[in-house]
Amino acid sequence: MADIDLMKQLAKEDGGKIILLVLDGLGGLPDGPSRKTALEMANTPVMDRLALEGCLGLSHPIGRGITPGSGPAHLALFGYDPVGTPVGRGVLSALGVGYPLDPADVAARGNFCTVDQGGRIVDRRAGRISSDTALPLVKKLDEITIPGVETQVRQVKEYRFMLALRGDNLNGDLADTDPQKTGVPPLSARAISPEADETARVVNRWLENASQVLRNDQPANMVTLRGFGQDPNLPKFGDTYRLNAACVAVYPMYRGVASLVGMSVLPAGEQASPKDEFQIVADHWHAHDFFFVHIKPTDSRGEDGDIEAKADVIETVDAALAKLLDLEPDVLLITGDHSTPARLRSHSWHPVPTLLWAPATHLTDNATGFGEREAQRGGLGHFEARELMPLAMAHARRLEKYGA
Amino acid sequence: MADIDLMKQLAKEDGGKIILLVLDGLGGLPDGPSRKTALEMANTPVMDRLALEGCLGLSHPIGRGITPGSGPAHLALFGYDPVGTPVGRGVLSALGVGYPLDPADVAARGNFCTVDQGGRIVDRRAGRISSDTALPLVKKLDEITIPGVETQVRQVKEYRFMLALRGDNLNGDLADTDPQKTGVPPLSARAISPEADETARVVNRWLENASQVLRNDQPANMVTLRGFGQDPNLPKFGDTYRLNAACVAVYPMYRGVASLVGMSVLPAGEQASPKDEFQIVADHWHAHDFFFVHIKPTDSRGEDGDIEAKADVIETVDAALAKLLDLEPDVLLITGDHSTPARLRSHSWHPVPTLLWAPATHLTDNATGFGEREAQRGGLGHFEARELMPLAMAHARRLEKYGA
Repeated sequence: MADIDLMKQLAKEDGGKIILLVLDGLGGLPDGPSRKTALEMANTPVMDRLALEGCLGLSHPIGRGITPGSGPAHLALFGYDPVGTPVGRGVLSALGVGYPLDPADVAARGNFCTVDQGGRIVDRRAGRISSDTALPLVKKLDEITIPGVETQVRQVKEYRFMLALRGDNLNGDLADTDPQKTGVPPLSARAISPEADETARVVNRWLENASQVLRNDQPANMVTLRGFGQDPNLPKFGDTYRLNAACVAVYPMYRGVASLVGMSVLPAGEQASPKDEFQIVADHWHAHDFFFVHIKPTDSRGEDGDIEAKADVIETVDAALAKLLDLEPDVLLITGDHSTPARLRSHSWHPVPTLLWAPATHLTDNATGFGEREAQRGGLGHFEARELMPLAMAHARRLEKYGA
Repeated sequence: MADIDLMKQLAKEDGGKIILLVLDGLGGLPDGPSRKTALEMANTPVMDRLALEGCLGLSHPIGRGITPGSGPAHLALFGYDPVGTPVGRGVLSALGVGYPLDPADVAARGNFCTVDQGGRIVDRRAGRISSDTALPLVKKLDEITIPGVETQVRQVKEYRFMLALRGDNLNGDLADTDPQKTGVPPLSARAISPEADETARVVNRWLENASQVLRNDQPANMVTLRGFGQDPNLPKFGDTYRLNAACVAVYPMYRGVASLVGMSVLPAGEQASPKDEFQIVADHWHAHDFFFVHIKPTDSRGEDGDIEAKADVIETVDAALAKLLDLEPDVLLITGDHSTPARLRSHSWHPVPTLLWAPATHLTDNATGFGEREAQRGGLGHFEARELMPLAMAHARRLEKYGA
């Protein structure tokens, strides 16, 4: 399989323009009396025409049976090994809340928890307190100061928060303080490599302070920290693919992953519709040769369990697609980062229907519309999500031949 | 995935006979008013019958999106990891021109270039001079003598040539002398490992001579050297598969790769037709248990951009196939090393339609003829080219069970 190193070796300076359109959580399961998925149920004349002309397949984000989080799922779409490219949960949380992480910052994911009078954990998630309950506690934690180091705390969701440290010579190679069980106290922060000894001391001082400021709160009277890490310094799109890449996304998480791989993040308002997002692509069409466009509500409506609403989102995208096609991209990929079947109300491991349209070079196949069962008959077959970038690069005529 | 080591572990002494028929550049894209590929357009009653009886699939030479050169593409067909088995460009060039490379020889690919009076490269390909212009210059280079080492230069094509060194204790671990940019002089040959120090001195002495003999020529007044290497000493078919393998190919390049992996190269005239090549198989049928048969013109007509002529070549092969079937092979594989769509006039990354016919053991599938879209419905699915040899070995009943 082609990997990032091979891409770097073969990528050419010039070539066609690529749009990677990601409908978050696109794939689904058949439901209701019609026994159709949201994508099969949606009326999508434009995608159906593209499917007839082009080529379909099924994308596996990580591997068969593996349900991905959004971070690794997008790393795979961008061509990185999603398992061999560890991005700490802390970094993903920082990206997720739009925190401007510097390369030297250390970030961790925090959980509020409940401890008894002996300091032993009795509930690892503090009764799953709501975001409203957690917010004032997050503010208290954010006010903790440690000499010589800037500490920042941001709310993530419910009992979850993000801790970021900024200072000289910090190192994120620390073990989790969450013991993963009740009946024992939270662990102290412990350096995995000696370079992180000083950072461990800083974190432990911060944990003592956290314990103090929360001591009279219930049920959230303590915290644990997980997934310490720093910017993984991934190979950037400009170096790897020689692409001047841009991201159009409404949610901070996706902008964050895009910026981790060196994409320019184009401004998009919090209320931007798919049509608005496509207009942003059009407005910046001449400045970039790769556009990652992220549509969130397909996933959100799947997580709501509302298959009709999910189909409506897909129809909204289809109705706006002409705006992208008018730009005459050389390669248009329509896929998802993972499946989110409404029936499961969550991310799932099911392969993601994927449409490749590249009129100068695509194979045609036996598929006549865009949907899960059509994709099963598609000419791309089953593939790993990380193979999509090499395919996009090939169809944009941006790769040299391998070997003589 | 099964690899060479596993094959060596499982291969049996006895079993059925295998024919691997490679139609170079077989795969294509639909074109013309019929929207058919060359293979779909060709009238191939014999292959269609074999497809109906047997099993189809799609072979990926290197990985999705990667367009292979002939060398790595054939290594993959022979079961080797095409990326992890680096064969230097020099060795492939030597094989390509039919130079009889000894295991201890060092070979490099050379380019003529243009340098200014300060010795700085102004054109890395010397104005892409024609083969006719280059030939007398190649002869001059071939006359250079270095004490203690035999040097040979052969024309490759246009501004490209091959340099081979024969002598004691030569080592090919040298960096390229091509600086990959203009405005600077060619680099000196530099040993990457200390064992190659003496070879670097020999090459630098040869380069001084080359500079002298070309000094009054224009535009080709200097050379650069790339891809130094030696026979990679690959595991041989006899050891790995316990096969007594033979090659029938018209072009030196393919004979060369076959001999790298230990096949006997059977004599075939430069004008041999597919039917002639199949007759050679028949003539040597009892002496070997594996035949690699290489048909070149499918690729050549694809590179010409002539889809009808490519279809004609396929029909010629089909019309002669009875000669192979009369031999009653246990396994017949018909595939390509890569696709060469006439529309692109070049090798491409598209998967290669592949036919497996092994009447005692093959699965049947829903495919009813041989072609790209039929192969998408095939029972073999998508697979990596290097998985074909394990499949052939299995169907020839030449593999032990793995594990208890």
